[in-house]
Amino acid sequence: MIMRQLDVFFNPKSIAIIGATETMGFGFLTTKYLLDSNFRVYPVHIKREMVFGQKAYKNVRDIPEEVELVIIIVPSQHVLEAVQDSIAKGVKGIIIESAGFAETGREDFQAIQQQITALAKKSGVRIIGPNCLGISNVYNNFTSAETDFTNVRPGNISIIAQSGVLGNIILDWAFHEGIGFSKVITLGNKLDVDEVDCLEYLKEDTSTKVICLYVEEVRDRLRFLKVAREVIKVKPILVVKSGRTASGAKAAMSHTASIAGNDTLYDAMFKQVGIIRANDFYEMFDYAKGFSMLPLPKGNRVAVITSSGSLGILTCDEIENQKLTLAHLSESTVAEMRQSGPEWVSLKNPVDLGPAQLQMMHTCLKAVLVDENVDALIWIEIIPERVIKEMGLTLQTAGKIIKKYGTEAGKPVVINTFGSPWFIELLHEQFDKYQIPITISISNSVKITAKLLQYQKWRMHPSES
Amino acid sequence: MIMRQLDVFFNPKSIAIIGATETMGFGFLTTKYLLDSNFRVYPVHIKREMVFGQKAYKNVRDIPEEVELVIIIVPSQHVLEAVQDSIAKGVKGIIIESAGFAETGREDFQAIQQQITALAKKSGVRIIGPNCLGISNVYNNFTSAETDFTNVRPGNISIIAQSGVLGNIILDWAFHEGIGFSKVITLGNKLDVDEVDCLEYLKEDTSTKVICLYVEEVRDRLRFLKVAREVIKVKPILVVKSGRTASGAKAAMSHTASIAGNDTLYDAMFKQVGIIRANDFYEMFDYAKGFSMLPLPKGNRVAVITSSGSLGILTCDEIENQKLTLAHLSESTVAEMRQSGPEWVSLKNPVDLGPAQLQMMHTCLKAVLVDENVDALIWIEIIPERVIKEMGLTLQTAGKIIKKYGTEAGKPVVINTFGSPWFIELLHEQFDKYQIPITISISNSVKITAKLLQYQKWRMHPSES
Repeated sequence: MIMRQLDVFFNPKSIAIIGATETMGFGFLTTKYLLDSNFRVYPVHIKREMVFGQKAYKNVRDIPEEVELVIIIVPSQHVLEAVQDSIAKGVKGIIIESAGFAETGREDFQAIQQQITALAKKSGVRIIGPNCLGISNVYNNFTSAETDFTNVRPGNISIIAQSGVLGNIILDWAFHEGIGFSKVITLGNKLDVDEVDCLEYLKEDTSTKVICLYVEEVRDRLRFLKVAREVIKVKPILVVKSGRTASGAKAAMSHTASIAGNDTLYDAMFKQVGIIRANDFYEMFDYAKGFSMLPLPKGNRVAVITSSGSLGILTCDEIENQKLTLAHLSESTVAEMRQSGPEWVSLKNPVDLGPAQLQMMHTCLKAVLVDENVDALIWIEIIPERVIKEMGLTLQTAGKIIKKYGTEAGKPVVINTFGSPWFIELLHEQFDKYQIPITISISNSVKITAKLLQYQKWRMHPSES
Repeated sequence: MIMRQLDVFFNPKSIAIIGATETMGFGFLTTKYLLDSNFRVYPVHIKREMVFGQKAYKNVRDIPEEVELVIIIVPSQHVLEAVQDSIAKGVKGIIIESAGFAETGREDFQAIQQQITALAKKSGVRIIGPNCLGISNVYNNFTSAETDFTNVRPGNISIIAQSGVLGNIILDWAFHEGIGFSKVITLGNKLDVDEVDCLEYLKEDTSTKVICLYVEEVRDRLRFLKVAREVIKVKPILVVKSGRTASGAKAAMSHTASIAGNDTLYDAMFKQVGIIRANDFYEMFDYAKGFSMLPLPKGNRVAVITSSGSLGILTCDEIENQKLTLAHLSESTVAEMRQSGPEWVSLKNPVDLGPAQLQMMHTCLKAVLVDENVDALIWIEIIPERVIKEMGLTLQTAGKIIKKYGTEAGKPVVINTFGSPWFIELLHEQFDKYQIPITISISNSVKITAKLLQYQKWRMHPSES
């Protein structure tokens, strides 16, 4: 049912843009992109005859063919009429991108939003927005959100975000992080379609493996809990919930007219159904990378191989904070590693290779990963630029070892690093193809493993976790 | 006294490298760099006649001229003899880079380290190390640490780090962050020179404005407290202390033979003298950027201008967490901003410009900064790549406004952003010249302001903070 209803937003057969514009500013890029695309698109503009060389209609009702989806980008005072016209035309879905509704706090604007909500309920036409950027589908390159698909990788992570602008920025950023996406949904004020509808949709979406959620308010909490509980059985849900404090909650009201509510209750609600909460977007997408790329660990014994003693120590601190255990490496593992390098290298866990890493890396990665006392590995890889440039270095073999003895053997491996953008890009070039997540945060490198384990336990025993 | 003693490590008139090597591996880059430099350098090697085309001496004592500083990079079993020879030669300072001492946990290696410590005490020759990379001085390009000065900006931040490898990596990374350095000191096992000596030195160093400290253990805590208390009066000390947990402490022992100790005590000790503790290196250097570039705020009233509602809300949450106050903007400020853009823009604090930022940015930055109810500003600036590329955008005017009405008017401004490396680099290009710190962490953008205020209060009333 929800699949049938919402699929028009992701795979529309025909689209009208009300407020299609050739003028620089809001709506310009969406109009230009869709009119240039292979989608069947009809520009609608009250005054213009043509938009980007294509015949424009004065009203959506004037379009002689069927229209499935309408994107509305006119100023807020004209939105109600545009919605009425669209419903009269017989469309299946409407995305209202325009801002200037309940989030302004003004009663007149709130009233218009309420009228539109009533129209949605009465007609059965589903509406996304207002005050959002709508949808991007990375598998057919449909977007109402100015997404530049040349900078987005297809993948198995989907996003439901209340905020419009951020949805897009996340895609820009994620491209350089080796993160791939399936669907991106921005919901704005949620006058009709909300995150629960989207969770139901993404549960059935075969190209989505991980769901990332950014919310300021969950209105129907009982329905949210019921649906989330079912989704979690098949795919993890990660959440950033803002408006934790009084100041934040007040800002959320001005942003998407959200009543952020008691944060302790939200926290309890997420825990109750096994939703994994992140403190910020970096944390959420680091978790998402882990769930997208890695197997779930079989236990909590973590090994650390490091080229920096300091980062190794900080990682151990975080392993203890996260209630994971430093793996006790077996004697044969230590003996094998010892043969590959100088006597002074510390081979306790953490295995601290320091400058001997160039000669010992491969032996150590393999020895630690095949050790039956190890469930997961964090590899801290830092190298000064000058060493790479003057001595030359490729990490292909390391990538192959991790894939074979880590990922394929059911042991998650996370790479943690610190360095210039140049170096991090190099790591991505070398490791993305082996689907090894790279993080620049010590804390997150450990938490990824902790969250994979938490989800694994939850799936085995939902009631106890 | 300490200036006279330690200055040889930063401004050596003549240098011998014991274990100078042409072979790829540890010591290679240091040898090559120093022999190519304008410093007076003598290679010492037990077997070779020549190193990089320069006459090598079998023993440091064979060098016919005066030697002020010795860098030792021979394997650990030969270090004691090299130290004895250096002292006999009459040098002023020794940097032992070689690892393989107390940190191995082996009694024989520990004994050698103790013998060397005794030699330092007896002779008065100051020794840095072992198990470190020594010193880099960005103002005369002296380095024993493989530092590539083409990738380091001169600045007013100095680092004292127990770990060698990390010191170097931080420079690589910081270059791209717009961070400039004065001195970088890595201390390793600290058999003689420790962080307290270095704090005393940096207190007097006129090119150092901010001191960053990474420690695993502070041995002489009373002396540390006494010296730190004096340093804080003239420049801030920021610290990352690892080995907070039992697992981390065990790793610290294997790294630099440090007894990390009770973390609660360390925390209390830092608070007692006004040292600002950071949880990780990103946080420490975000603070350092703030102290390096910004004026101290006169009060706790923070304004937020944002192009992303979501990030604005998360920022408000953090402002409340950090016990700062959201500034109440005066009516004239709001009125001035209102005239520059559409009615639907939310101009409460946070000022949430969204897609209207391109037209409203300049008016809002100035209006908020001149508002007498505002002590500090956090500007959240995100723009999708496509918008920048297709619409064109420069941020020069914004930089000038912030410099004039922010920094020069005694109001700190921090830029917070989220985006691809490409975009962050663009921001650095535009804002570094105006000395406006850029951070990618919401949390840190707020904490920078909080820490500036904390230090300001501490300086006014050391006893009450």
